[in-house]
Amino acid sequence: ADEQAMAAAREHQARLTKPAGSLGALEELSVRLAGLAGACPPPMPFPATVAVFAGDHGVHAEGVTPWPQEVTAQMVANFVAGGAVVNAFARQAGADVMVVDVGVAIPLHGGATLLDANVRRGTRDMAVEPALTHEEARAAVEVGIGVAGALADNGAKCLLTGDMGIANTTPAAALVSVFTGLDPAEVTGRGTGIDDATLDHKVEVVRRALALHRPDRTDPLGVLAAVGGLEHAALAGFILGAAARRVPVIVDGVIAASAALAAAAFAPDSVAAMVAGHRSAEPGATVALAHLGLEPLLDLGMRLGEGSGAVLALPVVSAAVRVLHEVATFDSAGVSEK
Amino acid sequence: ADEQAMAAAREHQARLTKPAGSLGALEELSVRLAGLAGACPPPMPFPATVAVFAGDHGVHAEGVTPWPQEVTAQMVANFVAGGAVVNAFARQAGADVMVVDVGVAIPLHGGATLLDANVRRGTRDMAVEPALTHEEARAAVEVGIGVAGALADNGAKCLLTGDMGIANTTPAAALVSVFTGLDPAEVTGRGTGIDDATLDHKVEVVRRALALHRPDRTDPLGVLAAVGGLEHAALAGFILGAAARRVPVIVDGVIAASAALAAAAFAPDSVAAMVAGHRSAEPGATVALAHLGLEPLLDLGMRLGEGSGAVLALPVVSAAVRVLHEVATFDSAGVSEK
Repeated sequence: ADEQAMAAAREHQARLTKPAGSLGALEELSVRLAGLAGACPPPMPFPATVAVFAGDHGVHAEGVTPWPQEVTAQMVANFVAGGAVVNAFARQAGADVMVVDVGVAIPLHGGATLLDANVRRGTRDMAVEPALTHEEARAAVEVGIGVAGALADNGAKCLLTGDMGIANTTPAAALVSVFTGLDPAEVTGRGTGIDDATLDHKVEVVRRALALHRPDRTDPLGVLAAVGGLEHAALAGFILGAAARRVPVIVDGVIAASAALAAAAFAPDSVAAMVAGHRSAEPGATVALAHLGLEPLLDLGMRLGEGSGAVLALPVVSAAVRVLHEVATFDSAGVSEK
Repeated sequence: ADEQAMAAAREHQARLTKPAGSLGALEELSVRLAGLAGACPPPMPFPATVAVFAGDHGVHAEGVTPWPQEVTAQMVANFVAGGAVVNAFARQAGADVMVVDVGVAIPLHGGATLLDANVRRGTRDMAVEPALTHEEARAAVEVGIGVAGALADNGAKCLLTGDMGIANTTPAAALVSVFTGLDPAEVTGRGTGIDDATLDHKVEVVRRALALHRPDRTDPLGVLAAVGGLEHAALAGFILGAAARRVPVIVDGVIAASAALAAAAFAPDSVAAMVAGHRSAEPGATVALAHLGLEPLLDLGMRLGEGSGAVLALPVVSAAVRVLHEVATFDSAGVSEK
């Protein structure tokens, strides 16, 4: 981070017509974004794009969710048609939605907003064998890096993480357990709202996969291959790509947070580009954000995924930056100081 | 609230392409707003106007803040010029800013966005005598009712509370103490950021005023007259006016929350129209919202006032409603259910 730009942002905040510190978390966010951009004020976070990475999961066969796997492809069609929650939120926030098939099990025929970057038609069952080969995991990471780079090339000033994949909170829980060292029971949640018996089983499946592969957290590619998902790997790359371009990336829920842990394992400096959009109701999200030292902007009990929590936080990020651009100083407004 | 519209909203939420309950607090908010409007979906919250009621305070003479009283008028000029934080946030959120002089000590010469409704050039010192006569308090309440009614007549679908008044967290603390029955030490905060000694003194001033007037919480006009402020009284009326027109009103920080307690004392049903925008860092705000049974949408450690926290929450309110307007159902999108 650029210390000079951060100091400039702190000094500018102190001259604005408001009591020092009265904007709370927005002030520190504005300083972080100045440091990331190397400029004060940092750019407004527009154009903004939420990239929704979609993939399927072999671990679905273990019965970790009541939803049929075909829903992944059906929801991709819903995103492309503009009918999902993330589309509604994005229209409101002024963000574009891009859908990336990085690992859906069913061949898709999308429109202009669907990028075909399918690495494999779903992962293998991590409870039985590694979910991905190292080559597949690497290819998925590179899809994410490429998408972030292309969006940055096109002028994006903010990237937002989105995801879709029935059963994808199971690999997310495994990733969070590996990277934080916490027990699967502490980081595995109810996903779409499973019952107690299914939750117990889901924890057991995660535990079995981790016992089978014994992933090494210092080898993030190996971890993603053993117990990750194609959208998780792509999101890790997407975050790395955003950080490499010094573009802020708003992290959504537990899928994105588990990918952010992988990104931080690849490149600890990438945390500087991450903004935690919200605190998902999934326990793994809170654990992962705390591990990364990130405080979420929103806490509304949401657990939808799709990027919905990230997009909902975009106006807050924008407000934090806008203050540095637009608010008058004590001098310019003729307001007395205490 | 219209139970039929609320039931319709709940049923519609269950048919949308997302797991049941996955939008957390937004779902319950959408149901509340349907009940308020008597329609499902309820209208989108636009046009939206934040009304910033400004007033001065005789209790300033007690030394409860280091800021000079003239800052109230200076900040009103800043609002009219568009240079304050609330202006920047409102531009982003698509809300209008209206400034109402209900009690500023200095005569103001504003532009088209400043409404002259001055009831009195600042309150009296509540530590020595009643802040207002009953007639003055009533006139200020009526200013707020009138502003809400005029905005509703002009088509406003969402009203937001704003305030400006150097020293106004002192009467707010007194109001919260009266209406909740809690000790002044539990509800008095640092306002713009006063030090420990000034905070101790501020608590003692509130305690002295309450001992002098012994306000009766069942007589909200008497409470406002004894220990209120002109902007607090106007905001109570503004909230009552919004509720009477079944227009949602987003409540900002501790000033608005103290006024909301007064509004609820006048008319308990008015709580149905209140949406808590954020959790201010002021302890009295949290206490007041809990007393009203309201859960704030944002919690960012803000303590600026002006309506800034209410305006920052407007996109969240809008998102909650937009879901009911725009998101596809399982049937319409061809998505399988579990």
